[in-house]
Amino acid sequence: MSKTILINGTIMTMDQMNQVYKNGAVAFENGKLTYVGEIPTDLEKYDEVIDVNGDYVLPGLVNTHGHASMSLLRGYADDLPLQQWLEEKMWPIEAQYTKDHAKWGTYLSLIEMLRTGTTTFVDMYDNMDEVAKAVEASGARARLCRGMIGFGSEELRQSKLEEASAFAKNWNNQANGRITTMMSPHSPYTCTPDFIEQIVGKASELQVPMHIHMSETLAEVAQNEKEYGERPVKHLEKLGVFSQPTLVAHAVHVEDWEMDILAEYDVKVSNNIISNLKLASGVAPVPEMLNKGITVSLGTDSSASNNNLDFFEEIKQAALLFKGVRNDATLIPAEKALQMATIHGAEAIWLDNQIGSLEVGKEADFIVIDTKQAFYQPVHNPISHLVYSGSGRDVKDVYVQGKQVVKNSTCVTIDEEKVFYEVNRLVQQFQ
Amino acid sequence: MSKTILINGTIMTMDQMNQVYKNGAVAFENGKLTYVGEIPTDLEKYDEVIDVNGDYVLPGLVNTHGHASMSLLRGYADDLPLQQWLEEKMWPIEAQYTKDHAKWGTYLSLIEMLRTGTTTFVDMYDNMDEVAKAVEASGARARLCRGMIGFGSEELRQSKLEEASAFAKNWNNQANGRITTMMSPHSPYTCTPDFIEQIVGKASELQVPMHIHMSETLAEVAQNEKEYGERPVKHLEKLGVFSQPTLVAHAVHVEDWEMDILAEYDVKVSNNIISNLKLASGVAPVPEMLNKGITVSLGTDSSASNNNLDFFEEIKQAALLFKGVRNDATLIPAEKALQMATIHGAEAIWLDNQIGSLEVGKEADFIVIDTKQAFYQPVHNPISHLVYSGSGRDVKDVYVQGKQVVKNSTCVTIDEEKVFYEVNRLVQQFQ
Repeated sequence: MSKTILINGTIMTMDQMNQVYKNGAVAFENGKLTYVGEIPTDLEKYDEVIDVNGDYVLPGLVNTHGHASMSLLRGYADDLPLQQWLEEKMWPIEAQYTKDHAKWGTYLSLIEMLRTGTTTFVDMYDNMDEVAKAVEASGARARLCRGMIGFGSEELRQSKLEEASAFAKNWNNQANGRITTMMSPHSPYTCTPDFIEQIVGKASELQVPMHIHMSETLAEVAQNEKEYGERPVKHLEKLGVFSQPTLVAHAVHVEDWEMDILAEYDVKVSNNIISNLKLASGVAPVPEMLNKGITVSLGTDSSASNNNLDFFEEIKQAALLFKGVRNDATLIPAEKALQMATIHGAEAIWLDNQIGSLEVGKEADFIVIDTKQAFYQPVHNPISHLVYSGSGRDVKDVYVQGKQVVKNSTCVTIDEEKVFYEVNRLVQQFQ
Repeated sequence: MSKTILINGTIMTMDQMNQVYKNGAVAFENGKLTYVGEIPTDLEKYDEVIDVNGDYVLPGLVNTHGHASMSLLRGYADDLPLQQWLEEKMWPIEAQYTKDHAKWGTYLSLIEMLRTGTTTFVDMYDNMDEVAKAVEASGARARLCRGMIGFGSEELRQSKLEEASAFAKNWNNQANGRITTMMSPHSPYTCTPDFIEQIVGKASELQVPMHIHMSETLAEVAQNEKEYGERPVKHLEKLGVFSQPTLVAHAVHVEDWEMDILAEYDVKVSNNIISNLKLASGVAPVPEMLNKGITVSLGTDSSASNNNLDFFEEIKQAALLFKGVRNDATLIPAEKALQMATIHGAEAIWLDNQIGSLEVGKEADFIVIDTKQAFYQPVHNPISHLVYSGSGRDVKDVYVQGKQVVKNSTCVTIDEEKVFYEVNRLVQQFQ
């Protein structure tokens, strides 16, 4: 196999020491990293030597919550509260979704994500075969699940459970290991307790983790207390959800003792800061969760509530918001925000032995940032520049498993023009 | 003079009706707009017809508070509270500043601002002749003032006042009218009452507005109360500051009755949301100020506390933050956030008869956004896409007074490489 090395980069390893090589190198072969460090002397042994000339090189970003198909609804409805936005705007139009919508919506999201440096993402939606096929074709990496809303007849629920189980089984470790799966009840407010228990049983049987929306809004928590006499965390604990490895999305409204439960079961959290602000859901207690040792990662949620998938915006927001609303400028420094977007993201989806940092033996998933721009001058602190001044638009090249998927800021695995044409064709057909 | 028209654009006029032409045109001649509307039939009368092929065209953005020279300190110190950041990090290094630092720091900021669509900005700093010369050469538009910190001897204060007055007088309406001036005591906590009164007197004499930092932190407000027995708004009112047209930066900690005073005197506000979050200064009552009819515009503050000058980040933050922290998803909708960045910005610096909207007779200051990107697909609501999904990095072409200053995302009036070289040379010399 071909041996490739990038030299003269500012290498942000995101390893346990947070090692940064100011003028370093990264090499890979057969999809895996074979060298990370100072520029070696044996460059002659490489088939290809790429001089990145001072650009930043860092692990591909990990977006731990989203709904790629929903990119068709970007800008379709804004400035509304969550329940009204869901019930009056999103659900009626999503009811018109076909496989085609899932397919092209996912491709649109893939363009955005790859183009802005996200190499791995979590997706919870339906028509997941279409999503998985698009991921496979694009060269991206993803942990996918068929999100189940438990409204309707028992027959409908069972057919969803079968579909979700088949998906989780058939696609796990596919696409050369780039696709893994989960089982996913949509939320405690859209699934009855017995349905959630059935899903937990299936996840245990298939040995895949669980993914669920939880404690996103105050209204949801109040409804849970009214209906089940418990707040969502305790409710899900009782239903045995946390007996499986679990990733919860949001966790905006969790009290101190609830965080203790999440910590006890090592429940992973995907915090969706921008979506939570836009839908007025609130501000999650992220500094407190981090203090309790909970793995907190970042997610965009869908581009219907964000409204883009440029993960650099989440990173900057993570480093800004808590400082401002808690009156403490030391909260979540730049380095921690970047960890949340890389290594903590990998930990949150149980892939930290493969991705999330640049270390020999891990997968060659990495991105290159064009630093020949004013935003990165003068050269003081690269991690600060990346977090506080950078943008996903500055991502120049993206590699997944050693294969280049973005070159000079353009996706090479997806025909962008065709995707733009198809998504506009589809949305014009909505009733 | 040459007549130019852009056609086939999505024209966001930001006029009083917030008119958007989905397939419109903008024409200019001699630096002024001569046509805004649907594509006219008399295209043959134009010397140049530019087809923007669906791109967005909108007024140049107006950044109403910053310190361009401080871009040399981007990433020099982060994750610290305001006073410690200022006293231990910024002021010692700023003491080493020369004219050269002001010059090249300003050029670096100008590259960032023009490149990301800001055509007009406010600057408060020293060595302002250097700043003004850079503005003039770059083709940008600015309202500039020599910010006076009143520490030190009476002699020093008087020399600053003379310098500030001479600057305000000499540069007002220069650079073909693109440069206007103000008088600026740095803040109530760095200037004695009598010094502020002297500055007000000079502003009145020179007939230029006032610009001042005010109520940025709780500590500042507490100190003002302790020292002068009043909160800053009342203090400045008593000193006669508001008898002059005044733009205050920050106004984070203002109570309801203080907002009434600001409204009564038509004091303009520059809200610096990102800088206020990063320095943990707090969240200003922007929705309340807007409700009281106060003109609230947006500012980046310097790239030492932001850490970039990409104004799209401020716009999105304005549309996000208040929703999330006030639990109301209807607060500051996309359109209002964009108004704050354009027409309200122009109003805040008393230039709304010249800039801030695309209307016939106004100056031809406008920007073109490259919408052939995933972030702008599918086509639902252009203003939503611009605010929630856009980035300053998507700005393609920028015109000020009808002169193109950015072409294909590169500054044509500034040698970017030379500026990057100079700023790095200068920061390496800091002690």
